Amino acid sequence: MTLRVGVIGGGQLARMMIGPAVELGVELRVLAEAEDSSAALAATMVGDSTSAATVLAFAKDVDVITFDHEHVPQPVLEALLEVGVAVRPAPAALLHAQDKIVMRQRLTALGVPVPAWAAVSTAAELAVFLEANGGRGVVKTPRGGYDGKGVRVVSDPSEVADWFEAAAGSALLVEAFVPYQRELAQLIARRPSGEAALWPVVETEQRGGVCAIVTAPAPDSDGAVAAQAAEIARTIAEGLDVTGVLAVEMFQTTDGSLLVNELAMRPHNSGHWSMDGAITGQFEQHLRAVLDLPLGDPSPREPWSVMVNVLGGPSEGDYTDHYPELLAAYPDVKVHGYGKSLRPGRKVGHVTAVGSDLAQVADRARGAARILNSAALEG
Amino acid sequence: MTLRVGVIGGGQLARMMIGPAVELGVELRVLAEAEDSSAALAATMVGDSTSAATVLAFAKDVDVITFDHEHVPQPVLEALLEVGVAVRPAPAALLHAQDKIVMRQRLTALGVPVPAWAAVSTAAELAVFLEANGGRGVVKTPRGGYDGKGVRVVSDPSEVADWFEAAAGSALLVEAFVPYQRELAQLIARRPSGEAALWPVVETEQRGGVCAIVTAPAPDSDGAVAAQAAEIARTIAEGLDVTGVLAVEMFQTTDGSLLVNELAMRPHNSGHWSMDGAITGQFEQHLRAVLDLPLGDPSPREPWSVMVNVLGGPSEGDYTDHYPELLAAYPDVKVHGYGKSLRPGRKVGHVTAVGSDLAQVADRARGAARILNSAALEG
Repeated sequence: MTLRVGVIGGGQLARMMIGPAVELGVELRVLAEAEDSSAALAATMVGDSTSAATVLAFAKDVDVITFDHEHVPQPVLEALLEVGVAVRPAPAALLHAQDKIVMRQRLTALGVPVPAWAAVSTAAELAVFLEANGGRGVVKTPRGGYDGKGVRVVSDPSEVADWFEAAAGSALLVEAFVPYQRELAQLIARRPSGEAALWPVVETEQRGGVCAIVTAPAPDSDGAVAAQAAEIARTIAEGLDVTGVLAVEMFQTTDGSLLVNELAMRPHNSGHWSMDGAITGQFEQHLRAVLDLPLGDPSPREPWSVMVNVLGGPSEGDYTDHYPELLAAYPDVKVHGYGKSLRPGRKVGHVTAVGSDLAQVADRARGAARILNSAALEG
Repeated sequence: MTLRVGVIGGGQLARMMIGPAVELGVELRVLAEAEDSSAALAATMVGDSTSAATVLAFAKDVDVITFDHEHVPQPVLEALLEVGVAVRPAPAALLHAQDKIVMRQRLTALGVPVPAWAAVSTAAELAVFLEANGGRGVVKTPRGGYDGKGVRVVSDPSEVADWFEAAAGSALLVEAFVPYQRELAQLIARRPSGEAALWPVVETEQRGGVCAIVTAPAPDSDGAVAAQAAEIARTIAEGLDVTGVLAVEMFQTTDGSLLVNELAMRPHNSGHWSMDGAITGQFEQHLRAVLDLPLGDPSPREPWSVMVNVLGGPSEGDYTDHYPELLAAYPDVKVHGYGKSLRPGRKVGHVTAVGSDLAQVADRARGAARILNSAALEG
């Protein structure tokens, strides 16, 4: 029987699984939100992934269910388990990518370094935390945030009065404001059997809360930093029994230590470089992992890879409009488009350059992205 | 507007365009022979590519029509041109890949080295040719042959009496039997604007008339051989005004010279290595070329690439059945499956290894292919 993977969600992550699935001879089926989703080519159903009936119908005849996003409610995931569908990552693991308070509790219990944090249900509790942590904190809604949404840096509880009201008594997460020198991400893939494979730790640069540039490996990370990042990712993957790709976003603080910021249990923007820069890219690896197949070699193909996101900007037209200029100027840069309309600020594609000279590689990737969207690298 | 490429034919070549099309954000539409074709994922129509009405309906709203195979009749292609559809390669070029006598005539006129040949319509004419060429020749049906079909080595006209009868007075092609040391293939991509890009010349090894192993670049080919192969491919691509990928299959004779054997005007088995072994693989390059976009860098990523085909064998089951053993043993080998049932002798997939030590690379590729099908490397 042909191996069949069902993906819930039709965004660019599902889209980027299509190529590797075709190459491996694995059938990919996508439950998409809309007819014109980024992964429409592989969509076998369009429907609401918060409906158990829809998801159960979609999951018939697949070997495993996995995800383009983390927004499938736990009761829906539990319903899949009840009828015997393999779900990877499992709901119990995925919960830690869905609820930031649960994640903070569990990472603290595992001894993983995290910023000082508290679950606060009232302005008074938040005020206590802020006073104890230098008068400033990062407040996050426990669920539903992404790309900078659901995150506010505050110095007074009144700045999140609306969130407290919306939370109606349930807690918000507050974390100490961490003075960091840079952000890193460690991606790991793990099979149900326990086998794991790690790409090198990468440096991520954000613009307006959105990942903009990824450098792989992170410069100056071949010693203790790389070892510590890998150890943290292994501890989390094993401790939470994660299957598939896990992305651990971290701060490297001004004193050099690492603190875990966020988790994602799926291929992640910080791993897009691996499609072109590693022997096994994150989308192929995710498919192998959730199918419990042996993992591929995650080694880089070249000393350096730099990935730059392309965001929709004020210009009209199609993503490919600038291809004549772009492809002529950068014949060795790999260009990815997500098949999306160019709504301002939306991630619509990315480019990756690889090579042995980091400065040149970064220049090529930035130059290529700039042609596609001059707004993407500002701010 | 999204760029749209229509591919006539739903075999593995169309299938292998899917990944690059998804990556580039180009829409691929396939006219497939059957519901369960190898490229079914991208099929927007199932129908008969020898029917002008079918092909015209399929070609609506695409920017360009290209091909998975060379079997679309000229009148159908001309009908496309008449309604203003871009066809690449154009029918006038494609004719040379459809009719071996036309090809031999044109290559001879271009001064491209080819084996001695003749168009023969009778046993008597064939006898004259054989007597003039050492008593042995290679007879080919001008149209429809592939993978060793439609080719016979003969020393007496009676050995192709059935073909003369079937030809009903039209000519067969006969070529001198060439004592060659090895077979080479030079692939080139060319845009309508004239820009061309060449991958390194490769060595191909056949088993039973079917491509079995490709080594890129061809060993001992960095000097005059590479230059001559490139010059031949450029001469043909320009002389015939080929657009898209052109594969030129050649003999390197025992005295070292090159003679052109066959042409294919589409991505070709001898170029599969480039998917994993070159910066720009042949399927991405073909899409760029037929869309008249600037071509990508065809340089190898590693000093050596070896591709081994996997053929269906006597065993039942699915292509992926041996993945647990295969992927564990060869974590760095890239594995491709074509989504086909394992009919004996059928090309059902391939594997590619890359690296800096040719012997090791070849061992890994052969070892991986052997796990998938022990029959593939015999004979």
